[in-house]
Amino acid sequence: MTHIHIHIPAREGRAFAVAAGQSFRVIDAEGAQVADLFAFVADTTGEWLSAEHTRVALGRLFPRVGEGWCTNLRRPILTFIADDSPGVHDMLCAACSPSRYALLGVRGHHASCEENLRGAMTDLGRRDVVVPQPVNLFENNPILPDGALGIEPAPTRPGDSVTLRAELDVIVVVTACPQDITALCGGVPSSIDIELLTT
Amino acid sequence: MTHIHIHIPAREGRAFAVAAGQSFRVIDAEGAQVADLFAFVADTTGEWLSAEHTRVALGRLFPRVGEGWCTNLRRPILTFIADDSPGVHDMLCAACSPSRYALLGVRGHHASCEENLRGAMTDLGRRDVVVPQPVNLFENNPILPDGALGIEPAPTRPGDSVTLRAELDVIVVVTACPQDITALCGGVPSSIDIELLTT
Repeated sequence: MTHIHIHIPAREGRAFAVAAGQSFRVIDAEGAQVADLFAFVADTTGEWLSAEHTRVALGRLFPRVGEGWCTNLRRPILTFIADDSPGVHDMLCAACSPSRYALLGVRGHHASCEENLRGAMTDLGRRDVVVPQPVNLFENNPILPDGALGIEPAPTRPGDSVTLRAELDVIVVVTACPQDITALCGGVPSSIDIELLTT
Repeated sequence: MTHIHIHIPAREGRAFAVAAGQSFRVIDAEGAQVADLFAFVADTTGEWLSAEHTRVALGRLFPRVGEGWCTNLRRPILTFIADDSPGVHDMLCAACSPSRYALLGVRGHHASCEENLRGAMTDLGRRDVVVPQPVNLFENNPILPDGALGIEPAPTRPGDSVTLRAELDVIVVVTACPQDITALCGGVPSSIDIELLTT
């Protein structure tokens, strides 16, 4: 087994192709870092990993190892094959975006997962991409007793990872979330590493 | 105050324009009926009511009366001004679609909220519409202690309603959910009425 390594600096995003059957690891390099993950079916512009369809398919709010995630056409797209982390992930919250930071009081430009996604897809020639709700690896949004959604720091330590297998030929986009206003990334956004596993 | 009335037969959907400041009621005419609700900003194709952005804005999983819902650009789009129903609504689950019924074992065509949405928007000349995750009025998807999402019949009685106010000029689409395989609509899909309130 050989590995192709992709480093995603803090606050940035990267797109990479994963063939059906191929697996990849998303590694929280420095700890307490959220990785927003998107996946698009490679040969079409109309099908992508969909959190809202995956919630229905799984009958659950949060992903668990061993389960499959599906597209907006309800086809299996990624399987969550290993979880070497505390097991806390989110699939309820929209990616951060310029409007999110404006509402949080930021003036001027602030990097965001939505802009990272658009940039990474534009680099591949896919403009006007739909922005699906991502699966937010390592993100800790606990459901409180009154039905509120909490925002807690990611509980990951350096080197924690999840491993996913592609069930279709996909373009995956991972962004190292630039959130430094809320506690989500422990206050200090840091980097994410990707290992593409080639058997 | 005058009313414009729109009847939505069982298993069908309708689109209607609502001006900023105008309110409308969504009425469960016969009881135990889910109404999938979508809203698109009228003068653009790129902005719509977004459940995933609304969850973040509210910090909650389910909508409550008095709160505002927002777009994918996080602008207020609808305000939930009255709830004359048991108060159970969903904003976690994708609209039913042909793939949902295929996976539930249906052979051949089955009406769906996604197709109802596409049809209603096509009638207005808006093809290739993005299918956002709807707010599912009266839909009862309780969160179970183990984190699973339940599917229970809508608890509404005939005449129960919610009232929403548009904060932008919008096209609203409401579909009387055709779900008759799960318990969601009590097994028998029925009709929805809309009252557009004109002051």
